[in-house]
Amino acid sequence: MKVVYVSYPPSDAVEGDVPASADQALGLHDFLTDRGHELVTTTDTGEGLDAELSDAEVLITTPFWPVYLDEDRVSKASNLKLVITAGVGSDHTDPETAKQHGITVAEVTGSNVVSVAEHNVLQILALVRNFVPAHENARDGGWDVAGVSAPSHDLEGKTVGIVGLGAIGARTALRLKGFDVTMLYYANHRRSPGEEATLGVRYARLDTLVAQSDVICLALPLMDGSQALFGPERLKAMKPGSWLVNTARGAIVDRDGLVEALESGHLAGYAGDTWYPQPAPADHPWRSLPKGREAMTIHCSGMTQEAQVKIAEGVHEMLEAHLDGRPLPDDYVMVSPDS
Amino acid sequence: MKVVYVSYPPSDAVEGDVPASADQALGLHDFLTDRGHELVTTTDTGEGLDAELSDAEVLITTPFWPVYLDEDRVSKASNLKLVITAGVGSDHTDPETAKQHGITVAEVTGSNVVSVAEHNVLQILALVRNFVPAHENARDGGWDVAGVSAPSHDLEGKTVGIVGLGAIGARTALRLKGFDVTMLYYANHRRSPGEEATLGVRYARLDTLVAQSDVICLALPLMDGSQALFGPERLKAMKPGSWLVNTARGAIVDRDGLVEALESGHLAGYAGDTWYPQPAPADHPWRSLPKGREAMTIHCSGMTQEAQVKIAEGVHEMLEAHLDGRPLPDDYVMVSPDS
Repeated sequence: MKVVYVSYPPSDAVEGDVPASADQALGLHDFLTDRGHELVTTTDTGEGLDAELSDAEVLITTPFWPVYLDEDRVSKASNLKLVITAGVGSDHTDPETAKQHGITVAEVTGSNVVSVAEHNVLQILALVRNFVPAHENARDGGWDVAGVSAPSHDLEGKTVGIVGLGAIGARTALRLKGFDVTMLYYANHRRSPGEEATLGVRYARLDTLVAQSDVICLALPLMDGSQALFGPERLKAMKPGSWLVNTARGAIVDRDGLVEALESGHLAGYAGDTWYPQPAPADHPWRSLPKGREAMTIHCSGMTQEAQVKIAEGVHEMLEAHLDGRPLPDDYVMVSPDS
Repeated sequence: MKVVYVSYPPSDAVEGDVPASADQALGLHDFLTDRGHELVTTTDTGEGLDAELSDAEVLITTPFWPVYLDEDRVSKASNLKLVITAGVGSDHTDPETAKQHGITVAEVTGSNVVSVAEHNVLQILALVRNFVPAHENARDGGWDVAGVSAPSHDLEGKTVGIVGLGAIGARTALRLKGFDVTMLYYANHRRSPGEEATLGVRYARLDTLVAQSDVICLALPLMDGSQALFGPERLKAMKPGSWLVNTARGAIVDRDGLVEALESGHLAGYAGDTWYPQPAPADHPWRSLPKGREAMTIHCSGMTQEAQVKIAEGVHEMLEAHLDGRPLPDDYVMVSPDS
């Protein structure tokens, strides 16, 4: 059996490597070769990958360096049976295409939901409290207290709207609860009153949430209904001077509409960890959002060392099941060709 | 009566001004001149200030741009009766000197304790999750997921030690409680079991806290017992790879010992909002701490717009009482010449 693992390269900037890089490959080298199987690792997501996929049975890809799997690519990979997302969020694989070709799509459910929830709180605080300019002033030798504090606010007393209240959104709410904020949420399925009380959230329709929130935090998957959900009109419907945080998926926010909302000053700030496409090209306009109005990161929220360990464990668990001919754990399966 | 207000200048970098700048002076211009009193505002903390203080009755100064009041300076200000800190933390005024000269020292207790508690959580998350390099990589056109994530960790499961559990430390604990951390605290006065349970903290002697904590957060005032409390030896006693956050006062941490602890790699990171002296000179060594191991800000944690409003209210309240010959509210008084 041939397994292809696609991920980002080791870093030139730091010593050592991380478990999920293309070189380390989550420790799968020994795991697979000991069992007589073949592992190919690559950073290539283009034509070189197509060649490798032509006789591969399993593809492992990450949201942080994704392989975009559409009909064109899948049709060339006739042996492909299983696509594993080393992380959470399998939107880079078209679910209908996978189903039609008899491919199971699975991810390591829960592996990095705490990591992303923590990143949400970090990026909210970084925006609201104007951290980036305060840090740059410290490095640059300045002491511009007036300039740094002018756009700086307490989170206390603000209204935070969480869009999507799944594993990540709920954990974000639990972490924000101690900040004395009003929390609204919108989701397809309303939580029980008991859950709402525990999380400290109140349900609102999306338009209401958008109109009332000082901070909006996106915590929903990318799917048909969420593609560009925050388009130019919805961004304009946000409160003047409000902030938007998006660790979910870049394509949920309209690229150029966001630039316009920040350049006009309608939004006070945007902090995104996710981009479209990924890796983001060097000239992606979100890399040069107006200074003092952004707290962007490259997609790393779910890549802490602790998350990488959990992701590795989940991928090993799935490969063991697949090799043994056992079904994958139900909660890992996103698309099943049999259903 | 002559009142002198000393603060930072308006910013060249942003439009408009902030309430606490030397120009805006917390709205005291009208308040005092309407009542027939004199207000002098200045950014000068040197000889020009000495001249103004020679016949002033009230001095208002901020921790963010402090007037350091020692015997030499106070002895030249023979009319001085009241020194108000526009903020929290009056360590820039020597308490014994003030007492001997019959000067009351007061601050706006509680005005920005939430602001600083929020900054604590922000700076903890920024360090532990390696935010600054992830942000710089986004701006610089890179996509070095391996390099950014190598030193990035979840806060979940870590031990956080809070040194000082007053208004700020307790509010920091309440905000960290949702992050599933183990929280230790050291303080001169132990909290009741009920308070400890509510805050989610457990008492530890300082040496124990230092030895066991992955993150240490300083939340105590600068005083005789805390000057350089984190000297070279105590920094060495911290866990290898741990993080230190200091929004309290710069002088609680030994300047050069900290540089050594970061350059050797013993500490994984330091995030300070406070410096000594302030404003920090452009060549202060903490401005050039090793990249990727710091998340410094200029002293702004307690200067959000919401904090400035509360500070202004408290200063007005104190001046009204002083003008009326009424005692200041007890909780504002730090040093009383009568006690």
